Amino acid sequence: MSDFKPSALTQTRRRADRGRYDRATVYAILDEGILCHVGYALGDQPVVTPTLYWREADRLYWHGSAASRMLETLAGGVKACVTATLIDGLVMARSGFHHSVNYRSVMAFGTAAPLRTATEKLASLEAFVERIAPGRWAEMRAPTKAEIEATTVVSMPIEDVSAKIRTGPPIDDADDHAAPVWAGVIPLALTAGKPIPDPRLDPAISLPECLARFALARGKP
Amino acid sequence: MSDFKPSALTQTRRRADRGRYDRATVYAILDEGILCHVGYALGDQPVVTPTLYWREADRLYWHGSAASRMLETLAGGVKACVTATLIDGLVMARSGFHHSVNYRSVMAFGTAAPLRTATEKLASLEAFVERIAPGRWAEMRAPTKAEIEATTVVSMPIEDVSAKIRTGPPIDDADDHAAPVWAGVIPLALTAGKPIPDPRLDPAISLPECLARFALARGKP
Repeated sequence: MSDFKPSALTQTRRRADRGRYDRATVYAILDEGILCHVGYALGDQPVVTPTLYWREADRLYWHGSAASRMLETLAGGVKACVTATLIDGLVMARSGFHHSVNYRSVMAFGTAAPLRTATEKLASLEAFVERIAPGRWAEMRAPTKAEIEATTVVSMPIEDVSAKIRTGPPIDDADDHAAPVWAGVIPLALTAGKPIPDPRLDPAISLPECLARFALARGKP
Repeated sequence: MSDFKPSALTQTRRRADRGRYDRATVYAILDEGILCHVGYALGDQPVVTPTLYWREADRLYWHGSAASRMLETLAGGVKACVTATLIDGLVMARSGFHHSVNYRSVMAFGTAAPLRTATEKLASLEAFVERIAPGRWAEMRAPTKAEIEATTVVSMPIEDVSAKIRTGPPIDDADDHAAPVWAGVIPLALTAGKPIPDPRLDPAISLPECLARFALARGKP
């Protein structure tokens, strides 16, 4: 897989060791994340909207109601920045200055465009559901024409992109190593709990394997 | 506590039931979160940067290296949007259309300004550390003058702000309730794992109570 090329926007200015431009790293972070923050401008006002997203090949996708301000604005062809961040831990150093956070993030710049046909939307929404729980799409009641019409899906090419990663223990000043202060990492992760059935659910319907697998895979850090 | 006033930016356009403007709700979400996404414009290009943040009274704060592009730009007095999002669960409905996500988010609009004096910066950085682990500040090696100088802290008033919340089970179409499809919520939360001591740490130094409490409080969902 070819690497991405750093641009004026994505070239790391500080801590060059944290910037990554290889496709495997960028895609792995995007595929582990569920929620991104989409930035765009309304006139001169930046707006940052949280939304679920998914990746297919070299494109990012997100969706919502056709009446959404975010999607309406993006469908007009404005510039966007999509950032997905995974927090991996709090880094507790011996000095306040060297406290940090372990994280993996991807920042992608581009212009999003709406999917035009119901066929494209349907295929992409299936990919969205299947990336979270492979097998779920076939279990669900199929989408109606009206539901597909009421859903806007936008996509943005993954081109002008970089990943940033911090990992490992605190990097304290050598002089501080002997200080009588606990130092280390408190791991953090987005973890799944026990699925809660809808109160209306027929108790005879048990949790499908695809969802049990999702919950299990997101264990405690 | 007085409520915030919805503005052209924060007035919910759709799903008005999800918008919240009361101070207690907004502050509770901000105080539970650790990471926010800060949006600002570089010319006509929106940029969304993940960063840790904290709240003191009616202001948001975040910090970083004085060489950070994000902080340098914001210190110039440009408009920003700060969004903090807590994911609480994936909502699995009987139809794809009614799948959703339980979340609590806060979106704050404003203009950030840098703290000017070392005294202000020091007090605010102490508040940052203490909000995560009360007691930690006193344990650490104290900041040096050079470290404080190398740190930029910016703050933004919490004024033009709203919270959005989705909670509870899926809302399926009545016709779908009898469909043989599992429906419910898979809870998600940012949880802490077992703290990992720095390999350089003297094994005689045990985990302080303030960090043990933090790790314990962020249990499995």
